Amino acid sequence: MYFDFETLARKDRYKLLVSTVLPRPIAFVTSLDEKGRINAAPFSFFNAMSAHPPVVVIGVNADETRSKDTIHNVRATGEFVVNMVCEAFAEEMVVCAADFPPGENELEAAGLESLPSVKVKPPRVAASPVNMECVLQTVVALGNDQNIVIGRVVAMHVKDEFLDAEKLYVATERLGVIGRMHGTGWYARTTDLVQYPRITYAQWLERHGRRKAGE
Amino acid sequence: MYFDFETLARKDRYKLLVSTVLPRPIAFVTSLDEKGRINAAPFSFFNAMSAHPPVVVIGVNADETRSKDTIHNVRATGEFVVNMVCEAFAEEMVVCAADFPPGENELEAAGLESLPSVKVKPPRVAASPVNMECVLQTVVALGNDQNIVIGRVVAMHVKDEFLDAEKLYVATERLGVIGRMHGTGWYARTTDLVQYPRITYAQWLERHGRRKAGE
Repeated sequence: MYFDFETLARKDRYKLLVSTVLPRPIAFVTSLDEKGRINAAPFSFFNAMSAHPPVVVIGVNADETRSKDTIHNVRATGEFVVNMVCEAFAEEMVVCAADFPPGENELEAAGLESLPSVKVKPPRVAASPVNMECVLQTVVALGNDQNIVIGRVVAMHVKDEFLDAEKLYVATERLGVIGRMHGTGWYARTTDLVQYPRITYAQWLERHGRRKAGE
Repeated sequence: MYFDFETLARKDRYKLLVSTVLPRPIAFVTSLDEKGRINAAPFSFFNAMSAHPPVVVIGVNADETRSKDTIHNVRATGEFVVNMVCEAFAEEMVVCAADFPPGENELEAAGLESLPSVKVKPPRVAASPVNMECVLQTVVALGNDQNIVIGRVVAMHVKDEFLDAEKLYVATERLGVIGRMHGTGWYARTTDLVQYPRITYAQWLERHGRRKAGE
């Protein structure tokens, strides 16, 4: 079925996008307001964009209560931490998505402990297997209070139990991160894995009994 | 373990980012060059950022062969199609990630059929359960040939078999989309699902025997 996104109602476009762009990684974002009060909220319009420079983006819609505080804090202080979410504290993460009033500490409300960061002031979530300390690079305003927060990763923490420090090898399959799926709170575990190894053009040519031009 | 991203080697930053920001949705992007020749390549630095306006972003690193053609085409024509990837054609998708020379039609090489789009010139992938026709909004240059392509979704196609057209309900759990994981070609199926329903602040207060201020 075909949908014209230029005439479709806003809520229907949202419904279609969040039920088809899948699975989405989750940025559980910690930030501080001007008075140093902690805010924590999860976002699934999130991904890495580049490793050199190391850049992540978060789509933050400032017309939602939980998002309003995050975008306010990030703009005011220029700093935030992205905490990856695993099943061990998914229920607590969901509590932090509730419409708490500004200044209320969602981490405390959810019973989540925090640890100090190294390069930025916002703390990181202790239960998270991976934390990324970020500084704001820029905010791209899309109109209608919708924004893309572009952040540079200045530091990363990975729990020792998931790391082969010598090879910088992360035991990804053991991290237990979950991705956002659809509807009223569905998430996908990263348990059911399948491998499709990359091939090169040379291998493809060989497979098809062809040769590179000029050979 | 703590990693200072401002001094860490480029390849190590890449390794850490792609093995921790998970699971990543995959944009299988079709585009046309100035001569109308099809290019197709998958990207996992991809997500929706907003529904109003409907915006997606793709991190495209122009120093890789496969990415070079995509960023060239998107810049030259201002149009592209994001095709979501399911297991049924994952192997073909991987073929399209190979370092084909510019002008070679990856879809044809991989044996994938295409269908015409409605609002943009690049065709869409027939095997894909969901196609998003996009126009380029802007490219954010991050330096070192790394770019964020910001696209506006002007139309979407969802295969009828996955859609309750009246309610605009997508049978997300049946789409069979896969997410990018780590290393040499590991992907996560969206099969092992778990539900953590959202709660409101009012529900949280009730659960903790507290009342809103002023009540």
